[in-house]
Amino acid sequence: MPTKMNRRIILRARPNGVPRESDFAADEVPIPEPAEGQFLTRNLFLSIDAGFRQWMNEGAGDGYLQAMALGEPVMGLVLGEVVASRHPQYRVGDLVMGRTRWEEWSLADGSDYLAPVERAAGIDLSHHLGAIGPTGLTAYFGLRDIGRPQAGETVVVSTAAGAVGMIASQIAKIRGCRVVGLTSTEAKCRWLVDHLGLDAAIEYREPGVLAAGLDRHCPNGIDVYFDNVGGRVLESALERLATGARVVMCGALASYEGGDPVPGPTNLFKLVTQRATMRGFMVTDYVTEYPAAVAELAGWIASGQLRPVERMLDGIEQTPRAFCEMFRGENLGKLVVRLDAARGAA
Amino acid sequence: MPTKMNRRIILRARPNGVPRESDFAADEVPIPEPAEGQFLTRNLFLSIDAGFRQWMNEGAGDGYLQAMALGEPVMGLVLGEVVASRHPQYRVGDLVMGRTRWEEWSLADGSDYLAPVERAAGIDLSHHLGAIGPTGLTAYFGLRDIGRPQAGETVVVSTAAGAVGMIASQIAKIRGCRVVGLTSTEAKCRWLVDHLGLDAAIEYREPGVLAAGLDRHCPNGIDVYFDNVGGRVLESALERLATGARVVMCGALASYEGGDPVPGPTNLFKLVTQRATMRGFMVTDYVTEYPAAVAELAGWIASGQLRPVERMLDGIEQTPRAFCEMFRGENLGKLVVRLDAARGAA
Repeated sequence: MPTKMNRRIILRARPNGVPRESDFAADEVPIPEPAEGQFLTRNLFLSIDAGFRQWMNEGAGDGYLQAMALGEPVMGLVLGEVVASRHPQYRVGDLVMGRTRWEEWSLADGSDYLAPVERAAGIDLSHHLGAIGPTGLTAYFGLRDIGRPQAGETVVVSTAAGAVGMIASQIAKIRGCRVVGLTSTEAKCRWLVDHLGLDAAIEYREPGVLAAGLDRHCPNGIDVYFDNVGGRVLESALERLATGARVVMCGALASYEGGDPVPGPTNLFKLVTQRATMRGFMVTDYVTEYPAAVAELAGWIASGQLRPVERMLDGIEQTPRAFCEMFRGENLGKLVVRLDAARGAA
Repeated sequence: MPTKMNRRIILRARPNGVPRESDFAADEVPIPEPAEGQFLTRNLFLSIDAGFRQWMNEGAGDGYLQAMALGEPVMGLVLGEVVASRHPQYRVGDLVMGRTRWEEWSLADGSDYLAPVERAAGIDLSHHLGAIGPTGLTAYFGLRDIGRPQAGETVVVSTAAGAVGMIASQIAKIRGCRVVGLTSTEAKCRWLVDHLGLDAAIEYREPGVLAAGLDRHCPNGIDVYFDNVGGRVLESALERLATGARVVMCGALASYEGGDPVPGPTNLFKLVTQRATMRGFMVTDYVTEYPAAVAELAGWIASGQLRPVERMLDGIEQTPRAFCEMFRGENLGKLVVRLDAARGAA
């Protein structure tokens, strides 16, 4: 049994709008031992996901997850290795991924999607949290089942330089679509076109720039809109839907920061005149289909069609900085924190 | 060829919010004669539809229809009989329904959904504009293809005492659902339960009353929401969606009156957590399926399972009053105006 301490990042204060590093603090506690039906993981990588921001708000609970508790470790996705087990389905040495906490060691009972992970040949382990993990799979299933892009169609992806958006954008390119990415800075726009090969990219923070860009780059309307933002950006996309368009409701970055509710789109009637569909989904509904999807994504990565762009920070103490950086729109691709256990620093 | 004058109702002023009778005026012009490719109908019934209100606004045009012109006859659905034709597909004596104008005689070229109407045995002709016409078919196809109600599910219908809502409500009852109607007055709530046989009805104008009513009557959430209103009422329904819920986007009464845009729902993220679908449609996309649908609706009417509730006013001069009455929420069921040609008063 391990003898080190378990270093964790706790929620010190509920963020007011954009999260700040001072909203978090580090602590350490003894490494727990599994009771009957539990197992212990030594964590290798933490996934940094904007979506968890919403459960940092007071009284968040929405029927899916409850608000995080102050003074407790922050909830987050983790990739770890089972190091002790009193659970019949998890064995020492198993690689697992699940929703536990920002901590170096996690006690789990298998209830929080602690899906087993098959090491994919030639693919970095950390991508199991990104391109071939929850964010990549979110893009994959959202496009496959809701967006259903056809070759030649126009697909618009918001937060296209983010972990989900960059995969959705690239899959739409693989499917032969014209792909327009929305992102927050001019530099990221250039990156989307020059590096990821999108057909166009538009800054979405300035409403006039967004509107003009969509008019210019979507002359025949938008067939598929992959929405990670909601609010005003969604409204602009709805305004330009083509007949029979599909809106993939994936995230709502604009609403994660709490405070007053972000105004909803005033033009939902466009769904009627354009015979359009807007549908939400959770990637966790597709657990049984993960292996086949991971295989397809891994194949695209191996063939060079899909770039699993990743930014990695080292050490659990970097987690608050990584999370806050994401909300300042500074990162490209998937953001992960590599823990000591994965650095050979154990 | 007819020798009488064509009495019409023109749009005198663009309504400011709720339409007033003074926004309209009557005029009369010579009855036109069809040119090559045209035909002339003598109109029997005018359909009064809230949805047309939006195209009375300045600059309305939404890619579906353009704004009505001031001083011109009001656009509306009409049931008429062909009395002269220079069109190869329309013959004298044909019964047709289409989007023409509030007038006693209409010139048409067949482009505005002037679908032929088969007289249904034992069913009043006027119902071709209502229960077995566009409003009934709207309810029918919206529920069939988007709502897909299963026996035992909870279906909520807004403007449930209106032309579309009363049919949607009754079809959902036929399908074995628990049906909760939303309407504007307590009297109409009683009517929905006592007369139409709904399981419950809630006044939707007062947000607190609506919220409490939905909580009480939808303890397991809403499986199907048939939306004719949009805005705040839609938001309340979204808040209570069951997992896998379907939202039929049919109308947007809250937005028809122009002025500032009605705020959109702030909680569209519910579509994500509830894996819900929101989809719009236009009944005119189903033209080829009308006959089979009309047959099924007519069968339900004949068997007494579906009540084609109708309020009828006599004479084209009643049209403005009928239209304004609808916006004051005074009518039950389908509102039609019977013209002289159908009264034997010709």
